[in-house]
Amino acid sequence: MKWDAWGDPALAKELSADIKGLLAAALGVTGDAAPGPSADEVVLHPSRLSAEDLDALAGAVGKEHVSAADADRLPRAGGKSTPDLLRRRSREAQDAPDAVVLPGSEQEVAAVLAVCAERRIAVVPFGGGTSVVGGLDPERGGLAAVVSLDLRRFDQLLDLDETSGEAVLGAGLTGPAAEELLAERGWELGHYPQSFRYATIGGFAATRSSGQDSAGYGRFDEMVRGLRVVTPAGVLDLGRAPASAAGPDLRQLFLGSEGTLGVITAVRLRVHPLPAVKAYEAWSFPDFATGTAALRAVEQQGTGPTVIRLSDEAETMINLAMTEQIGGAPAVSGCLAVTVFEGAAAQVAARQQLTRDALLAAGGTSLGEGPARAWEHGRFSAPYLRDSLLAAGALCETLETAASWSRLPALRAAVTEALTGALPGSLVLCHVSHVYPTGASLYFTVVAALGEDPLTRWGAAKRAAGDAILRTGGTISHHHAVGADHRPWMTEEIGDLGVRILRAVKAELDPAGILNPGKLIP
Amino acid sequence: MKWDAWGDPALAKELSADIKGLLAAALGVTGDAAPGPSADEVVLHPSRLSAEDLDALAGAVGKEHVSAADADRLPRAGGKSTPDLLRRRSREAQDAPDAVVLPGSEQEVAAVLAVCAERRIAVVPFGGGTSVVGGLDPERGGLAAVVSLDLRRFDQLLDLDETSGEAVLGAGLTGPAAEELLAERGWELGHYPQSFRYATIGGFAATRSSGQDSAGYGRFDEMVRGLRVVTPAGVLDLGRAPASAAGPDLRQLFLGSEGTLGVITAVRLRVHPLPAVKAYEAWSFPDFATGTAALRAVEQQGTGPTVIRLSDEAETMINLAMTEQIGGAPAVSGCLAVTVFEGAAAQVAARQQLTRDALLAAGGTSLGEGPARAWEHGRFSAPYLRDSLLAAGALCETLETAASWSRLPALRAAVTEALTGALPGSLVLCHVSHVYPTGASLYFTVVAALGEDPLTRWGAAKRAAGDAILRTGGTISHHHAVGADHRPWMTEEIGDLGVRILRAVKAELDPAGILNPGKLIP
Repeated sequence: MKWDAWGDPALAKELSADIKGLLAAALGVTGDAAPGPSADEVVLHPSRLSAEDLDALAGAVGKEHVSAADADRLPRAGGKSTPDLLRRRSREAQDAPDAVVLPGSEQEVAAVLAVCAERRIAVVPFGGGTSVVGGLDPERGGLAAVVSLDLRRFDQLLDLDETSGEAVLGAGLTGPAAEELLAERGWELGHYPQSFRYATIGGFAATRSSGQDSAGYGRFDEMVRGLRVVTPAGVLDLGRAPASAAGPDLRQLFLGSEGTLGVITAVRLRVHPLPAVKAYEAWSFPDFATGTAALRAVEQQGTGPTVIRLSDEAETMINLAMTEQIGGAPAVSGCLAVTVFEGAAAQVAARQQLTRDALLAAGGTSLGEGPARAWEHGRFSAPYLRDSLLAAGALCETLETAASWSRLPALRAAVTEALTGALPGSLVLCHVSHVYPTGASLYFTVVAALGEDPLTRWGAAKRAAGDAILRTGGTISHHHAVGADHRPWMTEEIGDLGVRILRAVKAELDPAGILNPGKLIP
Repeated sequence: MKWDAWGDPALAKELSADIKGLLAAALGVTGDAAPGPSADEVVLHPSRLSAEDLDALAGAVGKEHVSAADADRLPRAGGKSTPDLLRRRSREAQDAPDAVVLPGSEQEVAAVLAVCAERRIAVVPFGGGTSVVGGLDPERGGLAAVVSLDLRRFDQLLDLDETSGEAVLGAGLTGPAAEELLAERGWELGHYPQSFRYATIGGFAATRSSGQDSAGYGRFDEMVRGLRVVTPAGVLDLGRAPASAAGPDLRQLFLGSEGTLGVITAVRLRVHPLPAVKAYEAWSFPDFATGTAALRAVEQQGTGPTVIRLSDEAETMINLAMTEQIGGAPAVSGCLAVTVFEGAAAQVAARQQLTRDALLAAGGTSLGEGPARAWEHGRFSAPYLRDSLLAAGALCETLETAASWSRLPALRAAVTEALTGALPGSLVLCHVSHVYPTGASLYFTVVAALGEDPLTRWGAAKRAAGDAILRTGGTISHHHAVGADHRPWMTEEIGDLGVRILRAVKAELDPAGILNPGKLIP
């Protein structure tokens, strides 16, 4: 993954003439932004680790698995939010972890944590590096230094129980690597967030990730049956059964713990046979309220789509759900909805028919397969587009939340107002991409002229949006997690006493406070 | 509820001639057991609360809501396991809470907890009194006294959001009271454990209860969207959205906390419209392995029954799933399975057809509606039968677990062997009543001659069964919870470090250690 932008340089997306036209017409964006430094030009603060520190870390994992070289530190300097990328464009000295450590076993992870606790070194578990909430910032939290813990050597399919439909996957496997190992045996996990190509199994668990197939296969936390976690206080092996009444579910403390309570090394997950059949159908609704009510009907009746999502009027008008056609002539009127169905043939046919019945009854018009296939084709490409927009002088950022169905209209209005208030003249787009019987997510995309001091202006917009979310009954994050960026809202999210619980658990497991300081827990 | 047996005296079940014949033939049970004391005869240890203690409690909740009278203490003396009932048959002085306290608001609950922390009085939240794992034992845990906290005054439907399908229910509502309030508005919770008629919303949450409709409506913990909990350290209001990535899910610490971490006062729950249609179909399978594989196919394909359960050969032979016919001529050969479908007409038809297809393909034979309706008719009656068996000289007790599908055969064999080894000549029956994509529950019923010292003999059988469960990959409880009886296995269930986490959370919320001592946390 590029250090200063998303993903694979070979997949970078040129802006189409349509998009350039849209930027000029809607946002007044005309000139490119000043380019940032290249990897050769960028200056990092020197590593704060002493030779003795590095020797101790080498003693834990082997010399070849510790590096304080700038070339290794730079790609772990942080995540991929727009503020992250704006900071990377600075020609002043930038911060980065003081070293990268690559353990190869749970024993080595434990040894690294012991060295770091003794030497007062903070540890940031890196995952795939795709955080958009500051979860990977190299904060030292008052300690002497910080290392990036890269688990890429935890890359095995450790077990596949085909009777139970359970697989144990190493935490360092990326989405594609995990799916490839499972597909060789005829199985699939089915977790496809936009970060799929880079993010890891451990990261999905540590951030409560949710993928585009969540209607069919569930959120990542719902797929988790068991977890192994190495903490400074010892190892946990949680989750004995598909369901249990043996006290509190401690797995739920580590799902979403974002590296602050321990290092997840392996995850036991529900998997399913590779689907025999896949069916696509797109829909149009006259407006967002009608479309939202239709998705609610489908989900509350349990008709069983694998994917179901709805774009608002603005997203639909600019073809945002069909990456290749963004900014071109509107392909669909009203609000576009996409449905996809996977499974055995008879099941897919029955579920698609029940879903069609519900969507037709709710005022939908079928558009056939085309727009649904177009959505799937471009489903992982949006972050590349954001990078090109930034280079072209447009700030493009996203944020998301979830709430009960009854709260969604007020929530959407309040967030839209907060964003356009803080960024006058910006374009605010919204879609529903994850549905539950009692509510849904809302995902916002904001595009504005980059202008002067975009970091400060975006910061103000983000604060206004976060306040609006909490005020109108939403959660500060449905699937991006907390990191450093959402931490200011955690006290309101879970209350003072909730924060005290998290601190008490952390004090028990991480008494030296080395694990990802400055993230999640206020 | 009777103090020395299950439920309503008017519903007590006489043993049929068939059952008496079965007891004599299979177990050699012929003579009735010696009767225990009546409520007038039973002797309780005197209350240990001083007049000052009682005045302080009265100051918290009002004089009329505190009682140290034996008539109030006796019904809260404990739960309804067979060991509980055997202990109630003693003519020696019995233990009971030193008083019963009935707060009427969260402020009053907080005031009671403050009084108890100051005066070193333990607090046992009572729920509906249906624990079968010693969860209500009046243990003082080294403190001066113990009170039973009865939340029956928390009996309101506090909110119903018909758009989102969410209801907020007071923790003291019993199953029937909750369903009645919802049904008046056209809604249903759909949580029907065997304890349904007496157990409470707060108790369902605190024990991770699972009802007979779990295939359709989920376990109770899966229905929970939000919780209000009063702790000695303050009040928690958890659960903002249908799903969230805002850190660990703290609701999951209080679900299953069994009164050890706080007092649940209100629960926000997913509810659904009263079903328009209900369809029944019973099935026969040649053997338990074939039947289990059939249930697995149904659940892994997601064909959507509301109820699905399977009795083993022995349960089927004695008609255990059809309470009115127990012990009579076998009504079904092989293994009986029951399916029920609820919902809108088109949905029910589609789901029943897909389920039929899967069960037929897996070797099932349809028996039509009859046995499925007979199961539903008697679904809450089994505990009455146990009381009558006890009076007739037969020990009848149940235990349950869950595991991954692949582990079920070895788990079932090991538990059966443990029970019959400890109780030679006993009858061990088994069924699957809760299914998940990756595994299922196993529920065991043991019937044996009461004999000499049944408490000690059952204790040995229970220890052997619990050890077998943990050894073969099961959880110590799928839905009965932990209480005092399963506490010895908790360290093995969640590990030393898991226990340390629970203790750290408890120390933060309940520093005086007043909340349900001796339960759940080793």
